[in-house]
Amino acid sequence: MNVAGTRETQIANPLFEFLLRLGDDRLVLGHRMSEWCGHGPILEEDIAMANIALDLVGQANSLLKLAGETEGAGRDEDALAYFRSEPEFRNAQMLELPKGDFAFTMVRQFLFDAYSVLQWDALQSCSFAPLAGIAAKALKEDVYHLRHSSDWMLRMGDGTEESHARAQAALGSLWRYTGELFERDAVDEAVRDNGIILDQAAMQSMWTQRVNDVISRATLAVPAAGASSSGGRRGRHTEVLGHMLAEMQIVARSHPGAKW
Amino acid sequence: MNVAGTRETQIANPLFEFLLRLGDDRLVLGHRMSEWCGHGPILEEDIAMANIALDLVGQANSLLKLAGETEGAGRDEDALAYFRSEPEFRNAQMLELPKGDFAFTMVRQFLFDAYSVLQWDALQSCSFAPLAGIAAKALKEDVYHLRHSSDWMLRMGDGTEESHARAQAALGSLWRYTGELFERDAVDEAVRDNGIILDQAAMQSMWTQRVNDVISRATLAVPAAGASSSGGRRGRHTEVLGHMLAEMQIVARSHPGAKW
Repeated sequence: MNVAGTRETQIANPLFEFLLRLGDDRLVLGHRMSEWCGHGPILEEDIAMANIALDLVGQANSLLKLAGETEGAGRDEDALAYFRSEPEFRNAQMLELPKGDFAFTMVRQFLFDAYSVLQWDALQSCSFAPLAGIAAKALKEDVYHLRHSSDWMLRMGDGTEESHARAQAALGSLWRYTGELFERDAVDEAVRDNGIILDQAAMQSMWTQRVNDVISRATLAVPAAGASSSGGRRGRHTEVLGHMLAEMQIVARSHPGAKW
Repeated sequence: MNVAGTRETQIANPLFEFLLRLGDDRLVLGHRMSEWCGHGPILEEDIAMANIALDLVGQANSLLKLAGETEGAGRDEDALAYFRSEPEFRNAQMLELPKGDFAFTMVRQFLFDAYSVLQWDALQSCSFAPLAGIAAKALKEDVYHLRHSSDWMLRMGDGTEESHARAQAALGSLWRYTGELFERDAVDEAVRDNGIILDQAAMQSMWTQRVNDVISRATLAVPAAGASSSGGRRGRHTEVLGHMLAEMQIVARSHPGAKW
């Protein structure tokens, strides 16, 4: 499916599109986090990161299942996860970037967690009941994730010279990707008909306040506004997503329709 | 530390040695299971396997922590996980074998789960209280693991021709490694002084009964007795463990003593 085709789908079924965005954010970030499995520097943190990855992939599973039901084209969550190609993915670009070092992983997690709790908090009271249910459960998980990543922000920023420098460098690389999280388009307008109302502007203001507060308590500096990157919501991705998907999808694609 | 040196430790501190065996089994198997992270053929199963890996690494974390306290040489669970070399590992060889295909992973998990629940069931009432506590918690987890892996045995054995053939092949490759699980040596004798009493012969008989029952209900064949491999409990491993440890330990060893 090319990008033009995708944009038609976007208009035809905004609810499906909206759910893909939510699901793909978590699927892609969960996969990046799972790349740490068994490679952490400390057993306890290895376990914590695997737990976070699991929560995210679990959320993605529920969201893509619901997306598939909404699409009504017979695609289930596995078809959506394993048999879509890069331009059909709807995650924000920030989430597909390679895991980098531990500081990069944790700073990204923090920036996303602070966004995600605001999303779930709003969505848990939306009038589209299946999504409200997913949101209420996911909010509990992400509140814990945010506490964990915020603690690491403080620990890294206020830690050694090296941890401070790495965290600051990660903030610097990631900042340009944060604007995309709060973009608003026709999909967001259309899903109001489904009782899904997100005030992106208010969310961005709350996000900025919380994120800036943690950054300054961590004795780190808020990066200056500058160039920004976006396009993920419309299927335009950085070159790394294709590689990640190739790896993530190979087992399922090598045995299409395999029934064990 | 060479093998000769290790054997002295074994005599000097059997409780430490005993705990290492328990912990290393779970650490090594948990790592092998975590290699599936993000590579499963089905989202739901990916999540289940990550959960099992997490439980195993969590159990290893508790066991190695307790081992470190017992050793009294200042090594904590991270030092034991990340800074021991291959001949210092005490896992049974079966657990270090590469993850193979899904059938191999799940058959091994089944053979180990059936063993592990018997171990925990006996250890939860041992009079060494810290171990009894770990055992009671781990038993609950492993009962769930055993149900999951037993279900897969039935599903694979009684599934397609290919799944049946793969499960049978996995059983055939793994069988020679199962005897090691029930070996008994001076360490097992010595920890009776700590109130830790395991009747390996009785465990093996119960294990055989349960395993044979599931294998036959899965319409698979119990492999014939033949050559057997062992040595892991004394630090003799197959060549694959070194590669696995290199990968598992690289982050921690690249930043020794790093405090984030």
